[in-house]
Amino acid sequence: MQDFLKVFESVRDELVDDSLLAGQPQASREWMTKMLDYNVPHGKLNRGMAVLDVLRAAKGEGVSAEEAKLANVLGWCIELLQAYFLVADDIMDSSITRRGQPCWYRQPHVGMVAINDGIILESCIYRLLKIHFGAHPAYVALLELFHDTTHRTAHGQLLDTTTTPPGGKVDLTRYTEETYMRIVTYKTAFYTFYLPVACGLVLAGEVDEAALGVAEALCLDMGRYFQIQDDFLDAFGEPEVIGKVGTDIQDAKCSWLVVKALGRATPEQRARIEADYGVDEPAKIEAIKDLYRELELPAEFAAYEQASYDGLVAAIEAQDKLPPAVFMNLLAKIYKRSK
Amino acid sequence: MQDFLKVFESVRDELVDDSLLAGQPQASREWMTKMLDYNVPHGKLNRGMAVLDVLRAAKGEGVSAEEAKLANVLGWCIELLQAYFLVADDIMDSSITRRGQPCWYRQPHVGMVAINDGIILESCIYRLLKIHFGAHPAYVALLELFHDTTHRTAHGQLLDTTTTPPGGKVDLTRYTEETYMRIVTYKTAFYTFYLPVACGLVLAGEVDEAALGVAEALCLDMGRYFQIQDDFLDAFGEPEVIGKVGTDIQDAKCSWLVVKALGRATPEQRARIEADYGVDEPAKIEAIKDLYRELELPAEFAAYEQASYDGLVAAIEAQDKLPPAVFMNLLAKIYKRSK
Repeated sequence: MQDFLKVFESVRDELVDDSLLAGQPQASREWMTKMLDYNVPHGKLNRGMAVLDVLRAAKGEGVSAEEAKLANVLGWCIELLQAYFLVADDIMDSSITRRGQPCWYRQPHVGMVAINDGIILESCIYRLLKIHFGAHPAYVALLELFHDTTHRTAHGQLLDTTTTPPGGKVDLTRYTEETYMRIVTYKTAFYTFYLPVACGLVLAGEVDEAALGVAEALCLDMGRYFQIQDDFLDAFGEPEVIGKVGTDIQDAKCSWLVVKALGRATPEQRARIEADYGVDEPAKIEAIKDLYRELELPAEFAAYEQASYDGLVAAIEAQDKLPPAVFMNLLAKIYKRSK
Repeated sequence: MQDFLKVFESVRDELVDDSLLAGQPQASREWMTKMLDYNVPHGKLNRGMAVLDVLRAAKGEGVSAEEAKLANVLGWCIELLQAYFLVADDIMDSSITRRGQPCWYRQPHVGMVAINDGIILESCIYRLLKIHFGAHPAYVALLELFHDTTHRTAHGQLLDTTTTPPGGKVDLTRYTEETYMRIVTYKTAFYTFYLPVACGLVLAGEVDEAALGVAEALCLDMGRYFQIQDDFLDAFGEPEVIGKVGTDIQDAKCSWLVVKALGRATPEQRARIEADYGVDEPAKIEAIKDLYRELELPAEFAAYEQASYDGLVAAIEAQDKLPPAVFMNLLAKIYKRSK
């Protein structure tokens, strides 16, 4: 973590001192510095740090200090992409806090200017890629990886929005398993799992389309598992442990829990969901959780978690394109997580 | 114009039917179609249509139908970038209308979801570049051109924001000629003039750094001239002709007019600017315009316009790297424009 954060300091300074912006006045340079410090080097940083882990597992031999630095620069590119999405999502969801501090757009001097800061956060990715990878054989592959991931994530967000229109009427017929899986795959799994793994693999010199295809399939499976955990913890995790109070029920989110509940509910139970889901009242939120318990969703989740883990381990061992450690390190970090 | 709009139809369909998003449900596909139709093929389309003109002028020989199509695809990439900035700017500025229709975010079913639509608009650029130029020798040059332009434009916006903080107190000491020129260069000139010209040149096979440097210098000069016209028309243009009622004075914009006024004002006149600039009252807006007339800014603008035009023509003829027509076509379109 310390090494990774040290690389952040150096990439941040590179971005602020960028020759493309030579002569930028002090007020703008200070804004850039504060904006990057506030929005980027926070959170668990799992995505960013995974690149170096994957590179090490994929090479199966020593990784030079220079290669490690490049992996960490790519890691910060992923964290910049994440920061871009979060700054935008917080405005769209009217969120209050993020990673234990007020959302960036809620800072009194920021407001809607945060939208332009999002544009800058994203464009910083391509500055870093040009500076550090402009002469690297993987340059185009990396550019396309970030482009495709951004495109898919934004389409996942669009799919989520068209399924659960903000401020619109909740339409439970849209909350199907198929829609759920598609939202989760596009909105979360690509950028959270496939992007860091693909960055590490590409850096290790992996260019075989079939190997990258295997990685994509495994990563998307892992990403769905990760999001289902997230949905479960939102209702049944310990707020002190997960660091936030869940709001999926009152926000009428298309969550794994409600999709499963709808799949098992009797007509009477479905009517209770219709009445209480998406209403911001403590009694109704608790009533939905009671219904989840009645339907034994905590046990179903435990069974799902085990089956998912076992299935992933089997699939990781069944393929022979990539070293299992590439995936097992990531899987170990999320299996039975409580936060 | 008709040919250019026909290419829009085909690129829009390509984007909606993109294999990267295979299986996207109907509601999302419809949103994409409407969102693209609403935000992209409007306005004067000068930026987008300039690519083909530049290609023709640069090649100085026949341009095949296929080359023309590619130029127009690049033109739509520029219009997508413009749409991305405008959707975001309208939210940041709380604008009401854009190109004669309500701003996208003001549509009742849209709201802040417009931010994600902006992300999609931008990512569509890179989908089109990959589809149409993925195997073209200029692919990397084009990617970098769009990346660098986006980065610079966002930094121009940041510079504007740190100079004129929204809702903040107007600080006239910041409204210097130097700051003004820098804002205009970054925020407008790069994407409005250099980007289309560079796209056309790169497509014509121009790879000489010196020639592109000449093009950049000329285009940035033209871009500053264009923005100064814009600032002048905001106060002194005919609303029926320019299609909008200017708001720079009440919005306390760092406009060419106020910068010039501050440079010539007596202490008494400066006090009048301090009192009236940035206040949304018809009498105060008129008082500022009266002051501009008192200071003979309309005559100064006319002199600036002529000197700027003459200087550009001389510079275009003085260089021998590129055919003069590359620039003269663009310059002819903006000289003494009234809208």
